[in-house]
Amino acid sequence: MISKVLEHIDATIAPSLERLFDLLRIPSISTQPAHAADCRRAADWLCRDLAGQGFTASVRETPGHPIVVAHDLTAASGPHVLFYGHYDVQPVDPLPLWHEPPFEPALREDPVSHRQTIIARGASDDKGQVMTFLEACRALRAVTGGLPVKISIILEGEEESGGANLLPFLHANAEELRADLALICDTGLAADGIPGITTMLRGMVGEEIVITAANRDLHSGLYGNAARNPIHVLADIIAGLRDRDGGVTLPGFYDGVTDLPDSIRSAWRDIGLTDAAILEPVGLSLAAGEKNYSALEQTWSRPTCEVNGISGGYQDAGFKTVLPAKASAKISFRLVAGQKPEAIRASFRAYVESCLPADCSVEFTPHGGSRASAVPFDGAALRTALAALGEEWGRPAVTIGSGGSIPVVAELQEALGIDALLVGFARDDDRIHSPNEKYDLESFHRGIRSWVRILDGLDQH
Amino acid sequence: MISKVLEHIDATIAPSLERLFDLLRIPSISTQPAHAADCRRAADWLCRDLAGQGFTASVRETPGHPIVVAHDLTAASGPHVLFYGHYDVQPVDPLPLWHEPPFEPALREDPVSHRQTIIARGASDDKGQVMTFLEACRALRAVTGGLPVKISIILEGEEESGGANLLPFLHANAEELRADLALICDTGLAADGIPGITTMLRGMVGEEIVITAANRDLHSGLYGNAARNPIHVLADIIAGLRDRDGGVTLPGFYDGVTDLPDSIRSAWRDIGLTDAAILEPVGLSLAAGEKNYSALEQTWSRPTCEVNGISGGYQDAGFKTVLPAKASAKISFRLVAGQKPEAIRASFRAYVESCLPADCSVEFTPHGGSRASAVPFDGAALRTALAALGEEWGRPAVTIGSGGSIPVVAELQEALGIDALLVGFARDDDRIHSPNEKYDLESFHRGIRSWVRILDGLDQH
Repeated sequence: MISKVLEHIDATIAPSLERLFDLLRIPSISTQPAHAADCRRAADWLCRDLAGQGFTASVRETPGHPIVVAHDLTAASGPHVLFYGHYDVQPVDPLPLWHEPPFEPALREDPVSHRQTIIARGASDDKGQVMTFLEACRALRAVTGGLPVKISIILEGEEESGGANLLPFLHANAEELRADLALICDTGLAADGIPGITTMLRGMVGEEIVITAANRDLHSGLYGNAARNPIHVLADIIAGLRDRDGGVTLPGFYDGVTDLPDSIRSAWRDIGLTDAAILEPVGLSLAAGEKNYSALEQTWSRPTCEVNGISGGYQDAGFKTVLPAKASAKISFRLVAGQKPEAIRASFRAYVESCLPADCSVEFTPHGGSRASAVPFDGAALRTALAALGEEWGRPAVTIGSGGSIPVVAELQEALGIDALLVGFARDDDRIHSPNEKYDLESFHRGIRSWVRILDGLDQH
Repeated sequence: MISKVLEHIDATIAPSLERLFDLLRIPSISTQPAHAADCRRAADWLCRDLAGQGFTASVRETPGHPIVVAHDLTAASGPHVLFYGHYDVQPVDPLPLWHEPPFEPALREDPVSHRQTIIARGASDDKGQVMTFLEACRALRAVTGGLPVKISIILEGEEESGGANLLPFLHANAEELRADLALICDTGLAADGIPGITTMLRGMVGEEIVITAANRDLHSGLYGNAARNPIHVLADIIAGLRDRDGGVTLPGFYDGVTDLPDSIRSAWRDIGLTDAAILEPVGLSLAAGEKNYSALEQTWSRPTCEVNGISGGYQDAGFKTVLPAKASAKISFRLVAGQKPEAIRASFRAYVESCLPADCSVEFTPHGGSRASAVPFDGAALRTALAALGEEWGRPAVTIGSGGSIPVVAELQEALGIDALLVGFARDDDRIHSPNEKYDLESFHRGIRSWVRILDGLDQH
């Protein structure tokens, strides 16, 4: 039976791709208020697609962007799984660096890898990944007349903008959404051609700070030196956040952080993701950050501090001798298991306050806060999924870490008491959050096939 | 005779103000290419005004914005003076902070001082000041039928954007422009109601730096720590530019700088411009910058380093977990007599290069470079001008320093071999380069009257 489903997927990949392109054309940028209506359009599109293939589907309101919920509990046997994905995408700036308009998806051969790639904002993160699961369900229904296990689906629209409304929604609808196991498709392959299941996930704390000195912008000739320059204050704050060895200086930052066991260090080394393999594609040669940790170890297992944006004074063409009244920065910390987001936010704020000279004030705006999670789950389901992925990709699948934050893992645990299996098909070179985001056609195609194998496998035990 | 001219000025202040408003309506922002045509419109307007009142006037081409030149050499006696001003203005951002549209001039009572003020970009810097001189000439002609001395006028359009084309123009037209003395109206009163003549002027070196690390923007979760963040590199560079006592750390920065004589320190103290008087109006209470120097001493007699703008990563609403490929800053140094602009530029560039970690590169763009000048001039002309100002304002005029840079002083000396008398009527609270720039009606009105007294005085010796 399963081979017929896989054949059907191969034979109908063109219309599957067309549906993905339709979804990619909707500019559902959740962090920009101007795109609120587009977020709703994406939710409506998904609801129609799910209802059309046989799910009981609805668009549910939240104080922010809506959440799509769907169920098909008609399977006679097997576990009940809850699939999670998100339909919102990142902003597209800087727009001039895109070779194609970000919301006009195109299939292009990559000039280096010669792979066929789908180019669009959201192609990989996360619309392409979401559609691998929806297309797998569609193929199973077309060939077998139904689904092998009970499936619920939840697709949110605020993953890229803090996601503050998901947890309350999970709590409020816990009875409806509770399942035996969550499936999340928002992660990547272990490496080129090597499938992976992500078991270590980092958390995140984001903070925006605005430093204010004078009550208006000043002429730097008339007030320079004598009046406090908030850009200098901000630079001092940022420069003091890391020590010479790349460590974060905030008091208590490393409380609860344990070092990686040698066995995992060694297993990761075998994947072949050397510093050069990770950094050379983006034009770098040496790992920055903490001394004595490889780029992969830092990304999968160490906490970080990054300035994601900085702004102050005159930034247009030419020169303006202004001494600005304000300067601001967006700063984020990636957290690993053991770190408490609110303790780190408090330590950061106390540090910033301690750096302020006379006449300066600071305004803080929190952006997200989530613990890391070392994903615990039923060993049988993990083995089943690893085996299914290994069959599809022809290489043994491995358990890996993830640099990105997927707060929903901890939220599903908290609100519904269920564990999650993180299976994804993105590649490190997908340029997610950057211009020219892409998703390999192979990831999309084998991703659909992988889910069919996993769902079929879950029905067997 | 002079009292009749002064009476005529008082009687015709309304049409004088209307002409200034016409000029202020032209958004001649020289640093923004989109306003190139507006710069030409401002030049054309001034040329028409000068020709209309009897000057031989022309708009002269340069590789950048045009320069207006006018002559009236019909006076039978007295020296030949060359008046300099500029018709270009600063950009208007941040636009939302303006209470009136910046190019729709309005006469408004200041809510604090209850003075009548002219609100517009360029009201004070420098269109309002330029028009005090043009209106003085017009009044002299109307009442006396001519001008008391030979007058040439040069009005440039690139003072706010580097002014690279003025010096070549002065060299190329030296025979035509050479006079006995230059008059420049681009400075301020010594203090509230106290007229001043500026004899110490700072120079400036501007540099824009762009730090590049990766070859594209990265996801901070997937590359954080391991990939170099150029915002951190930039923050380290800026933080290292000043020491704990507010001094600039660049090697050789203070070479040639001499300390202020006690006699001048004491004279400036008598003006009453305390730190509080300078800083409280802009919402500050304590002088920043170099220890052991008052705000006024730092502004008039000490070199500075200021970051005028900084930019990198995501700066719009919300949050984006990007690790940017580039970060940039616009940095300027104000120079005092003895400092060499090109030596300081070289020292800055060497310092920045020395701060770059592996995989980072820097691109430098120079913006202006001018020596400071301690203005030397004929004692008789200075005495005459001080006396004329004292009569008009009812308070003895004093010689002062200036925090801003007026490169034309050194350029007039270099190209034409003439000294300059810097007489201006701006006030410290004019918000030049900032939103809601204004010029007091008193400055405009007494400014016109002051020039009549000065020109009349220059004819007497």
